[in-house]
Amino acid sequence: MKTIIKAYGAADAKADLKPMSIERRNCGDDDVKIDIMYCGVCHSDIHTVRNDWKGSKYPVVPGHEIVGKVVEVGKNVTKFRQGDLVGVGCMVDSCQHCASCEEGLEQYCENGMTGTYNSKDKHLGGHTLGGYSTSIVVNKEFVLSIPDTIDPKATAPLLCAGITTWSPLRHWNVKKGDKVGVIGLGGLGHMGVKFANALGAHVVMITTSPDKSKDAKALGAHEVLISKNMDEMRKHKNSFDFILNTIPVGHEMDPYIALLKRDATMVLVGAIEPLKPFHGGGLIGGRKRIAGSLIGGIKETQEMLDFCGKHNIVSDIELIDMSTINDAYERVIISDVKYRFVIDMATLKD
Amino acid sequence: MKTIIKAYGAADAKADLKPMSIERRNCGDDDVKIDIMYCGVCHSDIHTVRNDWKGSKYPVVPGHEIVGKVVEVGKNVTKFRQGDLVGVGCMVDSCQHCASCEEGLEQYCENGMTGTYNSKDKHLGGHTLGGYSTSIVVNKEFVLSIPDTIDPKATAPLLCAGITTWSPLRHWNVKKGDKVGVIGLGGLGHMGVKFANALGAHVVMITTSPDKSKDAKALGAHEVLISKNMDEMRKHKNSFDFILNTIPVGHEMDPYIALLKRDATMVLVGAIEPLKPFHGGGLIGGRKRIAGSLIGGIKETQEMLDFCGKHNIVSDIELIDMSTINDAYERVIISDVKYRFVIDMATLKD
Repeated sequence: MKTIIKAYGAADAKADLKPMSIERRNCGDDDVKIDIMYCGVCHSDIHTVRNDWKGSKYPVVPGHEIVGKVVEVGKNVTKFRQGDLVGVGCMVDSCQHCASCEEGLEQYCENGMTGTYNSKDKHLGGHTLGGYSTSIVVNKEFVLSIPDTIDPKATAPLLCAGITTWSPLRHWNVKKGDKVGVIGLGGLGHMGVKFANALGAHVVMITTSPDKSKDAKALGAHEVLISKNMDEMRKHKNSFDFILNTIPVGHEMDPYIALLKRDATMVLVGAIEPLKPFHGGGLIGGRKRIAGSLIGGIKETQEMLDFCGKHNIVSDIELIDMSTINDAYERVIISDVKYRFVIDMATLKD
Repeated sequence: MKTIIKAYGAADAKADLKPMSIERRNCGDDDVKIDIMYCGVCHSDIHTVRNDWKGSKYPVVPGHEIVGKVVEVGKNVTKFRQGDLVGVGCMVDSCQHCASCEEGLEQYCENGMTGTYNSKDKHLGGHTLGGYSTSIVVNKEFVLSIPDTIDPKATAPLLCAGITTWSPLRHWNVKKGDKVGVIGLGGLGHMGVKFANALGAHVVMITTSPDKSKDAKALGAHEVLISKNMDEMRKHKNSFDFILNTIPVGHEMDPYIALLKRDATMVLVGAIEPLKPFHGGGLIGGRKRIAGSLIGGIKETQEMLDFCGKHNIVSDIELIDMSTINDAYERVIISDVKYRFVIDMATLKD
């Protein structure tokens, strides 16, 4: 029923990550067993390891940007076969029958989706353990095909940072000629810039840091707006069709609301925490909107991967050894990464 | 060029309203001159009189829920004639050529609409003076027809409280069978309940006050949800298709965001001021939205009035004499009115 594999995890909220042995279920009839090649490092991994959002269950084995090779499939699996390059993102299960699941929006499953780590494990009991490990067994409905035209290691972050920015851009129908702002140039923001550019939008990177201008333009931004420069902010007032807000912490929203056109939307994808007070009049005066968006459904994740294959879009990454993960976390926290760490899981097998 | 008429206004932010003489332009080629019969009392009148939002210009003559009879029309006016029952709401002019104006959304005029009071007066200089007066001269494009099937005095509040609630209900396509929440039972809220009911929605009045239940149901609410009752609030979690939030001051939003279904919107129409911090996760977890909405355009105001004529919908009002306006203001502030004061302007002529 179970197999013992190697992983990296934290024993408690204050512990560094270190090697450990964990159990995986064996490959069931509806399952795909994947040998993990690469796993991206998401800020959520750190929040969960350190119990920032409360409710973490230990040991935490993080990792939900997983790319690997299929090594075994269950008898009901027809879509994948041994040797296929596949991915797993933030979810490994959902009820599959509620209205959200039926619409392909498993991330909003009304009965609660199963996160790739730190969710209730329906099979083994306990909680799910993520991708900082040598292998994983996942229900076939939550396995994605990775196009063979793009670099597998740089594809890993698409499974979370990618879909988190792709889904709102598509849902709010960003299209050729739209003026789109992306606030914040980190793991999420750099993907937002690439996608908005590829969708034909006029992309404006909105950042506090003038020194990010060159990089933003290299990634696909047509303009850079320094949010601390009140003159520049005034010039862009009421001009954006859509703003993707990737700031990961609570922040002032009024200056960004002022940038939106009438009827335009700013979507929050980063700040899963209390935001600062904003002025009701800012929304009322232009029928403006603030919304949130959580990762994306499996169907749209596959669409994104196919789009990336066609347009040669991947994440900008720094490949690291598993043993350097604790240093990498410190660098993520001070935003010292362009733009995503990806763990070479071969280094765990050694 | 000008005529002297009687009005009621405030000389400064601390003064009571009292009788004064003001100037009106004479009726121009594109104008309609209206003898005012009734004028509703809006909370904005008080905010402007008392300079709560800053920028008030004195004397303030408030009043933007105006119903009266046409007494003169300019030579370019074909739609109205002497004796017609007409209304004027919150706007008396706009640029008429920007994208918003061309879409019939003059309230969002990109060059700034002219408010019925306390806006720059393009004709006489100085600032506009509102409906607490015996007559008004208004550009024909900002004059509304009042159906002759409904009580004119109870129609006055439709011009602000009515359209402010009608416009978002229509814009967000509230329809038969939708579960619609209306937060707050005041001048705006009581119209929101009537309209949502008439549009076929299942209407839930959301209020802090259990003693408002009976009245809410009489107005058309199918259910009453007491927002202080955490058990009840939990039962209604993730169940609303739309929420109209009429709370006139900054307030906690998380409990109301929790009530929205996935992809559903809460529209703010009351609080033109800073709101309390809310939790980004509340929006992100269900792709939920917060929006604002400001009154409504002229075209949709006429549609609302026609709908009201057809469905016999008016505001619940208390008719007052002009001389009691200062007492009425005190009662508005403590919400001691069901649900709108309307001034009988004949009492100013005495």
